Amino acid sequence: MENEIVKASIITIGDELMIGQVVDTNSSFIAQQLNKEGIWIRKRVAVGDNREEIKSALDEESRHSRIILITGGLGPTADDITKPLLCEYFGMKLVRNEKVLQHVRHLFENVFRRPLTDINMKQADVPDGCTVIHNTRGTAPGMWFEKNEVIYVSMPGVPFEMQGMMTDPVIPMLKEKVTSGFIRHKTLLTAGIGESALAEHISAWESALPPHLKLAYLPNYGMVRLRITGTGSDEAALDNEMEQYFVTLQQKVSDWHVSTGDVSMVQTVSRMLRERQKRVGTAESCTGGYIAHLITSEAGSSQIYNGSVVSYADETKAHILHVNEQTLQEFGAVSEPTVIEMVKGAIKVLKTDYCIATSGIMGPDGGTPEKPVGTVWIAVGNGEKIITQKFSFRFNRARNIEMAAVQALNLLRRYLIDHPDL
Amino acid sequence: MENEIVKASIITIGDELMIGQVVDTNSSFIAQQLNKEGIWIRKRVAVGDNREEIKSALDEESRHSRIILITGGLGPTADDITKPLLCEYFGMKLVRNEKVLQHVRHLFENVFRRPLTDINMKQADVPDGCTVIHNTRGTAPGMWFEKNEVIYVSMPGVPFEMQGMMTDPVIPMLKEKVTSGFIRHKTLLTAGIGESALAEHISAWESALPPHLKLAYLPNYGMVRLRITGTGSDEAALDNEMEQYFVTLQQKVSDWHVSTGDVSMVQTVSRMLRERQKRVGTAESCTGGYIAHLITSEAGSSQIYNGSVVSYADETKAHILHVNEQTLQEFGAVSEPTVIEMVKGAIKVLKTDYCIATSGIMGPDGGTPEKPVGTVWIAVGNGEKIITQKFSFRFNRARNIEMAAVQALNLLRRYLIDHPDL
Repeated sequence: MENEIVKASIITIGDELMIGQVVDTNSSFIAQQLNKEGIWIRKRVAVGDNREEIKSALDEESRHSRIILITGGLGPTADDITKPLLCEYFGMKLVRNEKVLQHVRHLFENVFRRPLTDINMKQADVPDGCTVIHNTRGTAPGMWFEKNEVIYVSMPGVPFEMQGMMTDPVIPMLKEKVTSGFIRHKTLLTAGIGESALAEHISAWESALPPHLKLAYLPNYGMVRLRITGTGSDEAALDNEMEQYFVTLQQKVSDWHVSTGDVSMVQTVSRMLRERQKRVGTAESCTGGYIAHLITSEAGSSQIYNGSVVSYADETKAHILHVNEQTLQEFGAVSEPTVIEMVKGAIKVLKTDYCIATSGIMGPDGGTPEKPVGTVWIAVGNGEKIITQKFSFRFNRARNIEMAAVQALNLLRRYLIDHPDL
Repeated sequence: MENEIVKASIITIGDELMIGQVVDTNSSFIAQQLNKEGIWIRKRVAVGDNREEIKSALDEESRHSRIILITGGLGPTADDITKPLLCEYFGMKLVRNEKVLQHVRHLFENVFRRPLTDINMKQADVPDGCTVIHNTRGTAPGMWFEKNEVIYVSMPGVPFEMQGMMTDPVIPMLKEKVTSGFIRHKTLLTAGIGESALAEHISAWESALPPHLKLAYLPNYGMVRLRITGTGSDEAALDNEMEQYFVTLQQKVSDWHVSTGDVSMVQTVSRMLRERQKRVGTAESCTGGYIAHLITSEAGSSQIYNGSVVSYADETKAHILHVNEQTLQEFGAVSEPTVIEMVKGAIKVLKTDYCIATSGIMGPDGGTPEKPVGTVWIAVGNGEKIITQKFSFRFNRARNIEMAAVQALNLLRRYLIDHPDL
């Protein structure tokens, strides 16, 4: 069964990857897309703008993979070397493609409104034996090569452009070319239990899994995602079998179960609010707008979200949220009474049903012996009932902010479950 | 000279990388750290939880690299296979390490406050011939192996834990083991000019660079970062030479120059505000708190930042920011008059010197023929003088939000430069 799976490699090219100046998000996007189609990524390789390394990666990957997806190194500037190299690798020569040239000219004249230079025109030069892939979102065309039963697809490194090209036409073209077995994933999200405790809890269930079903633990921000991956040649049988194992797994972890599917905490909470036809607002001190950003990153969030008062300065807490000056003086900004008053004030000014409030010390400075860096108070509630929780995170600033935001959303989730009538 | 550079490979392990469920941020962190020490990453490889693929990656990379850094697959659960595999690969056997066990016990008893299970205890089993690397931030120890002049370091996949371990002791240990040539980078940030136009503008300068200095163009969010990378064996001579080329480059791009060094837009603006001893606030509709998040992600941001009103609902714009209901009705929320009133209102309620306001349609829905998805109005100003700009982005929701936030910060930067007295 394993043999029927089509295997692919991803090669990303660019010195910026070798010095760590950018994070490679392309590989995970490509992997997700191929995976849905039952194509398994065997290996991801990143190399610098170096001819020998690129060639050797092409040689190596073509020995083991049926499909090789290449991103990067296609721009018009002198540090982009992929196109001439591919041309040479496949024994072709560069020719100007009129259709690409028209498209580049159109973009410069009508969209960018910048003069078209000689360098830009070079974008229209492509190897004469490749299939040119249209780039609706930019100037550099993609290129599709086939040699000795291996498919090579070269795409630009700009994520937005690569994503458009992958979705259409690369994925449909690949589906047509390769028939393959099926890969399925079923995922659920847990919170409130550590990876190893969870593993012990479900160890009997896990060891009874047949060899073509695998379980993975994906811990992140105090939550653990559990994913079953199954492979098979009979789609319906595989779906059926996985569903059975998945149902048992859900029962086993029901105490910590947040959501089913590849759904995030914010998507789970948004769905709950939408179902109740209620709206939430946020009063953020230490999370500095990050909860607002998480919520508003979801399309359609205006249905459940009114807004946030990011009260970074104490003055803002007092002036907009009407937190009592005396509360701030007596208990400090990072305290239970302050976050409670923040919730009360924000519900009024934001005119929402519920509100989340956060206040804490994120570091690296600002900690005291009584309130060390990582101390965070969170309150959640409505006009009638407010609950609070104190957290002690032990990470760096960026991670403390992310942890606090996720825990705040989780506190709202639990509030909604525990108070179905509020 | 090139030969003196020590070469390294990064191997990241985990099925979650192969299906794209997580983005690999570890590789870029490791690359940055090694690069500063003059160690050049030759190749980054990611493989799944598959014994044969991991072994073949170890074999392959050890042929070309002096250092191999491995992350992932060290957790206590059944899907983590790296430790037994490394043990076998180096012909060692697993033994329980008392020091690690003490540390794991301490974490469970005093920090996590969860019962210590058998699975957790297994974290203390390490190959008997390796040097154990203490993990101050978690339970899984790192492991250092040496074989045939190649150094292998295995670290956990959790970014926070790996980062702590890299900083201390892995980097100091590597520095002691390998002597190497020097790599230097000098970077500057430009805005307002495209990659290819920039390349044409500096083409004469670029082609005069000696072979051991390389220029890279790193475009991102409407900005282009330019980076010179130089290699050499004489540190002082290299620094001197690079400084000379860099000064000329700065002069050539002065019209679009935002900042020098690997400094972001938000860091540039924060520094300008700190120098003027002024404070800013934000009134965010379409950016939904993302500008607030960017600003507050910087340590010490409370010196220059009061907070934000994320006025996602029109009601919030009217109620907290005192945007005229008539303005909203006549011109709409996404309009120049609205963002101007948002700035005016926010300066008053947030009590800041300057304010940034954003309002737009981020997609995927909500566009109209007059105001298509991607239309964004931004205003920046103080009580006396407000400037505005309209943008038309053509990306997906996430990227539109990021673009709008960066462009809003850039508008504030230009405002501060153009109005030194305000």
